[in-house]
Amino acid sequence: MSGTGLSLIGAGRGEPGGQVFTGWNPTENVALEPRFHSARPQDVERACQLAEEAAPTFAALSARQRAVFLEHVAEALLGAEAEFLAITPQETGLPAARIQNELGRAANQFRMFARLLEEGSWVDARIDHALPERKPLPRADLRSMLRAVGPVAVFGASNFPLAFSVAGGDTASALAAGCPVVAKAHPAHPATSELAGSKIRAAVAACGLPEGVFSLLFDAGIEVGRALVRHPAIRAVGFTGSRAGGRALMELAASRAVPIPVFAEMGSINPVFVLPEALATRPQAVADMLAASILQGAGQFCTSPGLLVAAEGPGYEVFRARLAEKLGAASAAPMLTPTIAERFREGVERLASLQDTRTCVRGTSTGAHGAPALFEADARAVLSQGALTEEVFGSCAVLTRAKDAEDLLGVASRLEGQLTATVMVDPGDQECAARLLPVLADRVGRVLVNGVPTGVEVCSAMVHGGPFPASSDGRFTAVGTGAIRRFARPVCFQDVPDALLPAELREANPLGLWRTVDGVLKRE
Amino acid sequence: MSGTGLSLIGAGRGEPGGQVFTGWNPTENVALEPRFHSARPQDVERACQLAEEAAPTFAALSARQRAVFLEHVAEALLGAEAEFLAITPQETGLPAARIQNELGRAANQFRMFARLLEEGSWVDARIDHALPERKPLPRADLRSMLRAVGPVAVFGASNFPLAFSVAGGDTASALAAGCPVVAKAHPAHPATSELAGSKIRAAVAACGLPEGVFSLLFDAGIEVGRALVRHPAIRAVGFTGSRAGGRALMELAASRAVPIPVFAEMGSINPVFVLPEALATRPQAVADMLAASILQGAGQFCTSPGLLVAAEGPGYEVFRARLAEKLGAASAAPMLTPTIAERFREGVERLASLQDTRTCVRGTSTGAHGAPALFEADARAVLSQGALTEEVFGSCAVLTRAKDAEDLLGVASRLEGQLTATVMVDPGDQECAARLLPVLADRVGRVLVNGVPTGVEVCSAMVHGGPFPASSDGRFTAVGTGAIRRFARPVCFQDVPDALLPAELREANPLGLWRTVDGVLKRE
Repeated sequence: MSGTGLSLIGAGRGEPGGQVFTGWNPTENVALEPRFHSARPQDVERACQLAEEAAPTFAALSARQRAVFLEHVAEALLGAEAEFLAITPQETGLPAARIQNELGRAANQFRMFARLLEEGSWVDARIDHALPERKPLPRADLRSMLRAVGPVAVFGASNFPLAFSVAGGDTASALAAGCPVVAKAHPAHPATSELAGSKIRAAVAACGLPEGVFSLLFDAGIEVGRALVRHPAIRAVGFTGSRAGGRALMELAASRAVPIPVFAEMGSINPVFVLPEALATRPQAVADMLAASILQGAGQFCTSPGLLVAAEGPGYEVFRARLAEKLGAASAAPMLTPTIAERFREGVERLASLQDTRTCVRGTSTGAHGAPALFEADARAVLSQGALTEEVFGSCAVLTRAKDAEDLLGVASRLEGQLTATVMVDPGDQECAARLLPVLADRVGRVLVNGVPTGVEVCSAMVHGGPFPASSDGRFTAVGTGAIRRFARPVCFQDVPDALLPAELREANPLGLWRTVDGVLKRE
Repeated sequence: MSGTGLSLIGAGRGEPGGQVFTGWNPTENVALEPRFHSARPQDVERACQLAEEAAPTFAALSARQRAVFLEHVAEALLGAEAEFLAITPQETGLPAARIQNELGRAANQFRMFARLLEEGSWVDARIDHALPERKPLPRADLRSMLRAVGPVAVFGASNFPLAFSVAGGDTASALAAGCPVVAKAHPAHPATSELAGSKIRAAVAACGLPEGVFSLLFDAGIEVGRALVRHPAIRAVGFTGSRAGGRALMELAASRAVPIPVFAEMGSINPVFVLPEALATRPQAVADMLAASILQGAGQFCTSPGLLVAAEGPGYEVFRARLAEKLGAASAAPMLTPTIAERFREGVERLASLQDTRTCVRGTSTGAHGAPALFEADARAVLSQGALTEEVFGSCAVLTRAKDAEDLLGVASRLEGQLTATVMVDPGDQECAARLLPVLADRVGRVLVNGVPTGVEVCSAMVHGGPFPASSDGRFTAVGTGAIRRFARPVCFQDVPDALLPAELREANPLGLWRTVDGVLKRE
């Protein structure tokens, strides 16, 4: 397998000497080559210094120049498809088709941001012209726009080795905003990370950008990540992973001399509410749809449904039986790493051991494989037993048996923050849905009707986030064009002469942006 | 003096029994009536419960309904001008003209947000239509908009008893976003706070809104504020005050089971750079402008200039002499409270006692009065002595003597986060200004040319915030229409039937909003 196993520090390499680790083939349960060397403190220091030095130059590029760079990254990623296919399925157990698909998604994210930059209006330019004659006091000329916050630390996720990892949405949106990135590779797919990182830095070099625009650090453990988040040059953090990991980074970032924001996407149980008429009318179809969503990718998605809520009544037993049938028929699937598989088994065991749950499906999980699991519990138990609403990362769901529609609404109103909530609705459910939707909208980032939460579209309207603990800050999305706002802040220019203003704010609007001028949105 | 001295809990009152305190007349140095009763734990609990109960109803109002409510508040505030004039100057030592002006500003903030709601596009509606034929997978219909985050705790500032206090910008923007507010009155102006609060709750009643939309808590100390920030119903905090106070709230909020954002505006030293030609050409005019800004309101503004930077050379001595003359000629002015005056005197004493400073002006401050102070130090000392760049709240500035323009740029590049930075420029300074402005833009919320930072315009383009420690989160502004974004988060609706969507997202665009539809901003 390719790769040197050394961190990418700007245009250079880290030194060997740090703790060594390897990738792992979860399908064959064997270690992979090469050996990777954890970054050492001086590597972290150098990567952050380079990022700090590069920041002003990178932020000062025109939007078009940054767009060209992002297109270069997209091209370089797509051009490496054969290399990724040789590496990533081995490291992750994910099938080649998924990797191809995810590579396209990763490249598309860079292209989406390139288009956003080319259009340019994302900077939210606002102009309030001077009112020299105003009484009692004149008004100055005031103009504001969004600017890069500075170097961003990105923690790759384990479950999307391309689209949410080194070359994922956090990196794409930070670079788009004009922020250098220091990425920390997830140890579950180090060779994929090195390949993706090398493609980004090739684009940095091809575009003649300062080398500090991108670095990639390896680590077997958590010390490199901690050092990175503590480094004064770092101004924001993007993270996708567990609640414990995200919360630890939040606390670390909040305790710095200069606190910085952490955008942590920490998963959720993505509740699905099956309303009475939908349950009565099409119990099998709904069960099939949900089973497929639960089984997809061995359930290793942040948006995998982990809590299904339905009221007793017509269709309930058929629904449960069909769900159990579908999940029970699925064989154990390879999970991303032995650790993830082990945690999955522990989670299933924890649910099975609760007095209040009935086990509907529980296959045998061994090695790096996880077998689907389904439990049933009453709504009362779900509301009182915290363990029933804790995410078990993998194909595992708790079917919650509500007494009636009121009981079902009661579950919704006591949910903690979620990435998504889904409602299965038939025409006769409209009244119930009209009550339920606002309750859910208050608690989640995305509300779905008659769909499945797995599958996060990369587009303008997507919100992949949600109130804590789904994410660290529900006011931002990690996916879609809105993700760029995490890494930008507004700056106001008062009475600054036109020649000294950024192009986005010059009176003649040379970039043709949509701008709010004296309170009115316009583009002329 | 009017007022009952009891907290306003929704439509009711707090109970007496908490620690008692009074307002203070800093001009005459006497305590004022009535006695105010600190809120007790059950008052905090009840206010937060009411806010939580009111939240869904309040958030579900149409934008127009909320706009009408905000207009009611503005009317009620303006209608109470005579009452404010009878109370506020006594409590604050601020002249009647300033109070009139500030009352207008407070009312205008509510009106500005009412107009923003009536126009409606602030919700950033985004629609990506379904692509059922897309290969390999169809795209769902996705629509997102900003929604209220839930109840907000607002801490009134001491220095703007109207425009940044109970009826200030934090309250106006939170209510505009659809968030109930539980305000904590600043003990420096309790009667003003009670009057402002009673006007807001009168508007709540007049509009038939749930009583929990607004409550006001009194406290002699910090326990009520701490209990408020810790309460699970509270979802965000607005604060204007000291760095120590802001940082304490940030830490408290970050340590909750469910962490919440704190928007703390913590002041800054607002550096002013006088470039060589401006210094040589008009040293007296620049000195006059800056002296007036430093003296304004006894320097009790977050944006008061506290660090002046100029290079040795033509005009320097004249500039320093004129500045000293103007500041030395000003008499000691009453400060807002004896505590603020005492801290001012301590700050001045600290600067005077540093080996590296030369005292240019230092009058005698007694009681609640503060006399202007001016010190001079070399750039090297300013960069190495943290105390020289710490804010002294009041009319106090440090003139920093740089060796040359490079040295001046060196000071700029080592600034911590600031609300503002100002550059005095003449035509011959263009090259230096072109280098300096981007350095400042990276470190501040607002960059000014040839103006003074005091005077924060309430408008669309204003940014009143800046990187830590100027504010807790430089990605947001506390003043202007942008302030509403602090209290809203995006929610995405996937395949939700039109009838179940909020009006803002319905296909026919019944509110006539600007929306991003399939990536294109449009309004038809």
